[in-house]
Amino acid sequence: MVGESSQAKASRRKLRLGMVGGGQGAFIGAVHRLAARMDDRYELVAGAFSSTAEKSKASGAELGLPEARCYGSYAEMAQREARLKEGIDVVAIVTPNHVHVPAALEFVRRGIHVICDKPLTVGLREGKRLADALAKQPDVVFVLTHNYTGYPMVRQARQMVADGLLGKIRLVQAEYAQDWLTTKLEDSGQKQAAWRTDPKQSGPVGAVGDIGTHAMNLGAFISGLTLSELAADLTSFVEGRVLDDNAHVMLRFEGGAKGMLWASQVAPGNENRLVVRVYGEKGGLSWSQEDPNYLQFAPYGEPPRLITRGGAGSGPVAGRVTRVPPGHPEGYLEGFANIYTDAAELISAKIEGRAPDEGATLVPGIRQGLEGVKFCEAVVESSRKNGAWVKAAV
Amino acid sequence: MVGESSQAKASRRKLRLGMVGGGQGAFIGAVHRLAARMDDRYELVAGAFSSTAEKSKASGAELGLPEARCYGSYAEMAQREARLKEGIDVVAIVTPNHVHVPAALEFVRRGIHVICDKPLTVGLREGKRLADALAKQPDVVFVLTHNYTGYPMVRQARQMVADGLLGKIRLVQAEYAQDWLTTKLEDSGQKQAAWRTDPKQSGPVGAVGDIGTHAMNLGAFISGLTLSELAADLTSFVEGRVLDDNAHVMLRFEGGAKGMLWASQVAPGNENRLVVRVYGEKGGLSWSQEDPNYLQFAPYGEPPRLITRGGAGSGPVAGRVTRVPPGHPEGYLEGFANIYTDAAELISAKIEGRAPDEGATLVPGIRQGLEGVKFCEAVVESSRKNGAWVKAAV
Amino acid sequence: MVGESSQAKASRRKLRLGMVGGGQGAFIGAVHRLAARMDDRYELVAGAFSSTAEKSKASGAELGLPEARCYGSYAEMAQREARLKEGIDVVAIVTPNHVHVPAALEFVRRGIHVICDKPLTVGLREGKRLADALAKQPDVVFVLTHNYTGYPMVRQARQMVADGLLGKIRLVQAEYAQDWLTTKLEDSGQKQAAWRTDPKQSGPVGAVGDIGTHAMNLGAFISGLTLSELAADLTSFVEGRVLDDNAHVMLRFEGGAKGMLWASQVAPGNENRLVVRVYGEKGGLSWSQEDPNYLQFAPYGEPPRLITRGGAGSGPVAGRVTRVPPGHPEGYLEGFANIYTDAAELISAKIEGRAPDEGATLVPGIRQGLEGVKFCEAVVESSRKNGAWVKAAV
Amino acid sequence: MVGESSQAKASRRKLRLGMVGGGQGAFIGAVHRLAARMDDRYELVAGAFSSTAEKSKASGAELGLPEARCYGSYAEMAQREARLKEGIDVVAIVTPNHVHVPAALEFVRRGIHVICDKPLTVGLREGKRLADALAKQPDVVFVLTHNYTGYPMVRQARQMVADGLLGKIRLVQAEYAQDWLTTKLEDSGQKQAAWRTDPKQSGPVGAVGDIGTHAMNLGAFISGLTLSELAADLTSFVEGRVLDDNAHVMLRFEGGAKGMLWASQVAPGNENRLVVRVYGEKGGLSWSQEDPNYLQFAPYGEPPRLITRGGAGSGPVAGRVTRVPPGHPEGYLEGFANIYTDAAELISAKIEGRAPDEGATLVPGIRQGLEGVKFCEAVVESSRKNGAWVKAAV
Repeated sequence: MVGESSQAKASRRKLRLGMVGGGQGAFIGAVHRLAARMDDRYELVAGAFSSTAEKSKASGAELGLPEARCYGSYAEMAQREARLKEGIDVVAIVTPNHVHVPAALEFVRRGIHVICDKPLTVGLREGKRLADALAKQPDVVFVLTHNYTGYPMVRQARQMVADGLLGKIRLVQAEYAQDWLTTKLEDSGQKQAAWRTDPKQSGPVGAVGDIGTHAMNLGAFISGLTLSELAADLTSFVEGRVLDDNAHVMLRFEGGAKGMLWASQVAPGNENRLVVRVYGEKGGLSWSQEDPNYLQFAPYGEPPRLITRGGAGSGPVAGRVTRVPPGHPEGYLEGFANIYTDAAELISAKIEGRAPDEGATLVPGIRQGLEGVKFCEAVVESSRKNGAWVKAAV
Repeated sequence: MVGESSQAKASRRKLRLGMVGGGQGAFIGAVHRLAARMDDRYELVAGAFSSTAEKSKASGAELGLPEARCYGSYAEMAQREARLKEGIDVVAIVTPNHVHVPAALEFVRRGIHVICDKPLTVGLREGKRLADALAKQPDVVFVLTHNYTGYPMVRQARQMVADGLLGKIRLVQAEYAQDWLTTKLEDSGQKQAAWRTDPKQSGPVGAVGDIGTHAMNLGAFISGLTLSELAADLTSFVEGRVLDDNAHVMLRFEGGAKGMLWASQVAPGNENRLVVRVYGEKGGLSWSQEDPNYLQFAPYGEPPRLITRGGAGSGPVAGRVTRVPPGHPEGYLEGFANIYTDAAELISAKIEGRAPDEGATLVPGIRQGLEGVKFCEAVVESSRKNGAWVKAAV
Repeated sequence: MVGESSQAKASRRKLRLGMVGGGQGAFIGAVHRLAARMDDRYELVAGAFSSTAEKSKASGAELGLPEARCYGSYAEMAQREARLKEGIDVVAIVTPNHVHVPAALEFVRRGIHVICDKPLTVGLREGKRLADALAKQPDVVFVLTHNYTGYPMVRQARQMVADGLLGKIRLVQAEYAQDWLTTKLEDSGQKQAAWRTDPKQSGPVGAVGDIGTHAMNLGAFISGLTLSELAADLTSFVEGRVLDDNAHVMLRFEGGAKGMLWASQVAPGNENRLVVRVYGEKGGLSWSQEDPNYLQFAPYGEPPRLITRGGAGSGPVAGRVTRVPPGHPEGYLEGFANIYTDAAELISAKIEGRAPDEGATLVPGIRQGLEGVKFCEAVVESSRKNGAWVKAAV
Repeated sequence: MVGESSQAKASRRKLRLGMVGGGQGAFIGAVHRLAARMDDRYELVAGAFSSTAEKSKASGAELGLPEARCYGSYAEMAQREARLKEGIDVVAIVTPNHVHVPAALEFVRRGIHVICDKPLTVGLREGKRLADALAKQPDVVFVLTHNYTGYPMVRQARQMVADGLLGKIRLVQAEYAQDWLTTKLEDSGQKQAAWRTDPKQSGPVGAVGDIGTHAMNLGAFISGLTLSELAADLTSFVEGRVLDDNAHVMLRFEGGAKGMLWASQVAPGNENRLVVRVYGEKGGLSWSQEDPNYLQFAPYGEPPRLITRGGAGSGPVAGRVTRVPPGHPEGYLEGFANIYTDAAELISAKIEGRAPDEGATLVPGIRQGLEGVKFCEAVVESSRKNGAWVKAAV
């Protein structure tokens, strides 16, 4: 019962934050800013919010930034900020997918830390270029906002699996169902729908890339398993839609566990129903993003328990990223903020030349980014081969 | 608010019932008797309860039957009862799977109606033999107890799809998860576990045959769709178990709809979690066997509704098989009894030379039996071919 | 996994059952018959179904009874059946409330066992007359169908309290909410609504008598507490309605526990939402009639558990009245049948001169009947005195 | 789908915020700061965080404030800040209850806006002194953080009642159940427990003041009704505890509606289970704080609907205070932040000499504060009079 997560206390350093993308009208940029603000560990000081200097300055003005720190391109921003005495410590990249890697490279090369929206990129080759650049800059922190791993009960679930409470894992059943693309919304001019259904901006995947990767990432995060191969069947149910709006995938993990993954944007009655269930030799777990403060735990042969965020049975890993007492729900933004605050800890530790708080090391990085891209490629390949099994290891 | 289902009222004829199997200690035989008794449309008058006359008479005595009507074999029973003036009208076959068809043939040939436990049989060829026999006896009623189709809200769901409330169906997500075979229960001497995991008694399928067929049957029943092909991945997670205890299946239906099916007996925390979700262009439905009095209906773009058995939004098809007012739950036995009472109506109509109540024609019969057997065969074949797509149409 | 409750096995004696009331169109009579039939421990052989011999014979014919055993009055039936060699063992009284006691007296005096619908009667004085008659006939069994005490998880809850798992009980929060009298349904000619809102047939209480007594009975049953005094506020919200359609009651129990009770028939969205929550020094329990297969148990300081009927954590007291495996729901009729089957055991034990199965002694009898009547009287008195505390002990 | 609530957009003015209380280790102070920060409408610039200058400066330093703006008392802070050119616009008072009014008076008199934690104060007379001071300063905004009114679906519920969707309201059933004081936690030195159970710091009420007022406030907020009188039964279940840890209250509202209120801190299994149910002639609503993104709406005679935050059926009043898309849950902090951001709008409007956004006027103020204090006094009086009805109107 702390009013602020204990994670926030490891360091009080406040980081100077820049942003690429997230100009007026963008949804996810505002989420990132709010997440950065929640624990007061960042100050937004610069941005390349849009593709022109004029628009960028307009967005920056709304956010209270001086004109001089509002740039017309990420390249300009990287160059200029790197030279400033009090330039940005870290940049948040919140553009459409195809910009992620080229933008990240500009900052990584200059030793500026990066927080990047998911998916990492649209192609594995490009992703590996970034991985190589990061390998050469071991002091640069790279965080990928697979934000659902920030939910306290997701981390609780992961810890319970790691602690062996479920025994050896046999099954991972993951799904992410939405209904907002049930009709051809992209024709209405709705911006979110437009770019997500456009191969030029989203790459070769629709539902798989947008939400399937979240489900896959979460299944792997909680179970601790590595995906080995998969068989997929993609469909575009809405007439005239090019990218998949539904994905059925069978999964095989290293070590013999198996699973299924369903991602759909055409399932009426589902808003953001991301559900992961994991079953082992000794017990099962179930977690749903729409009711994130609960974790159902069924030790085999005993009555199932409801573990609540911060309540009895909820351990220190979850407690570390909990702000308010049990029974007072936290949500999507708090989970997102946990990623940001953990990133702040990783970056602060680098700056201060110390080891970071161990809990902060749970945030997803380049490895998870590559896994997500590989997952997408494998799904597309398998579906093209009529569901043949395809290797999915990075 | 009727106290007895209106279905029971179409006719008051009480049928003379015989039973094959269901001797002392058998679970499903007792369920069948209770289901038969619920609406008072049957009187149990004869049985071949066990494989020896002695055991059969002992079981019969416990049930209050005279020795003369307790037989040592189904063949003897069929012969003798067919000759009696007041012999049985109908027989319930509740033996292990491999006995279903040979027993049924004995009665069908003699014009005695049959109510048979599922699955129909362990091989498609044998199933077709029975289908042929039935084709030659158009006045004999054959009912297969895919009992979940007897739940009022399952029929409500089916009707809503048929009425077009969901638009064209795109997706059928079906699952049946249990946990009772998480450990090697069959080694403990538990009878239910022993025969279900034994290929000699269960055929080549474990979880798929026992519960996967229920999920498939229900998905098809509600959606009104015909399965076209499938790709499957079977696993025996428990060491030393021969038959599958987990099945992952991807589905394709005629007309373009798709789906997934998951059947598992090793998922801790799941008792009989049979869930079917159906999504169409205009809405979605979700039903769970463990909470069967509820049906969630989400018309696209409107708030989801909770339709309760007998409550507002629950129509006459469900009302016909409802016994008590909304808010007073009905369960598994009532659903099972609905199959029996509908069978009584079909049989009574034959005897009385009239058309049956239309609602009664919803009960599963030989076609559903063949579909189930074909489904099992296709799943096994696909899994052996490492998940290749296999035709599943009968 | 038994297919029939183990309670049914104590004795195989089949009892000859008569019925008073329950003629054509009556709801509760059909429920009683179905409940009696479920475990095959009764055979309906006689009845005084209606107030005239003609109507009674018509109803009897529909039920397959011979004319000679269909009577025009309960008095005639009692006299005649008592003299028959194979007359009824037991009578079920399912008339409107004011007939219960006079009818029961006729049978009790002749040594015929009685199963009586609740509430016992409309006035405490009359109830005590029956209690006196029963005291003189110690070999006559009298069972009152407070049917909700037949639910397995209700008995499980009671046992857990008795076993001390909750520590000393502090709080009993009981409610029974319906919505079917939200409008003036009684003016439409609906029969159920008409007699329940008519003081001549229902006595001085509406919602309190019809459903409030159930909530009170259940709260006392589970907690094991005796009501000491109460303060009540009755309301007739629907214009022109004479009897209460809503009751607010504060409760005080012997020993210091307290509680609240809410009974309403004008709460839209509630069907038969009977919920009892009990809290003690060491834990809490919650049970809801609409989802009766679940019992929520929260030991203080530990994660709450979900105990399912027949599942882990569900003990022998519940198991004894369970018919099908966990995850296969049972409902209202099974709970009602448990009362009937327990009554059969009590009666059989009397006939056979042995002690009954202990589990069967849980069924409500004359004491619970008197408590219910006293509760109603106290509520009315308190409400008339503007909510003053009124003694509620019998 | 906005990423930030539209309420935040009415004005971009950033307010200078001071804080009284909320020093190191205080829970609610940190919540206020986080809520203030969420929409970036406040900058914390000064504080009297503790009762000594030294402690106050230590707390301030942790929050990044200069020493000069950290004061040893609220009186000093009010004097000094009022004289500064860029002194605070608004002060947040987050002290124990008995300090609220004296502190508020210092700021109100100097024209500084006040955001005050609930309850307003421990005595009605003192509350009226503040009301009088505010009446003389019509340009000073006073907001009381009955934070649950900031939840989007609470406002949605209120609007639906106001729009007549429930018809005339008959019933308000409110409860707030916790379990954290099941044992004598205050003896362990737990700070939150200590002051809440101490009459010197909390006044004459325990559970009633701490959580009962929230339930009452919310019931009145949603229903739009004014409490007229009440009858109460207070209990201190834990031995040695002076203040009530459980309250049972019957309610009567102006216009004939009735209700019940239960507040308890000794109900194991309940964390912060604040539930309000409202029933009218045409429908019912139910909302629970632990699952705040859902609102159950049951129009009489139609299937109940589940309205989700931002989903279909959720209107502009809720949308205005919604930050993320439906299916992405918001929680306690977002609801609290909505109060802060609305307060910012009210204050900005005063400063800018314009009418505020109408939505912002929903925040609770002095009237709700007086109602809460009166409610507590009436409960105590009624309980002392053994549950006699006591007037509760301010």
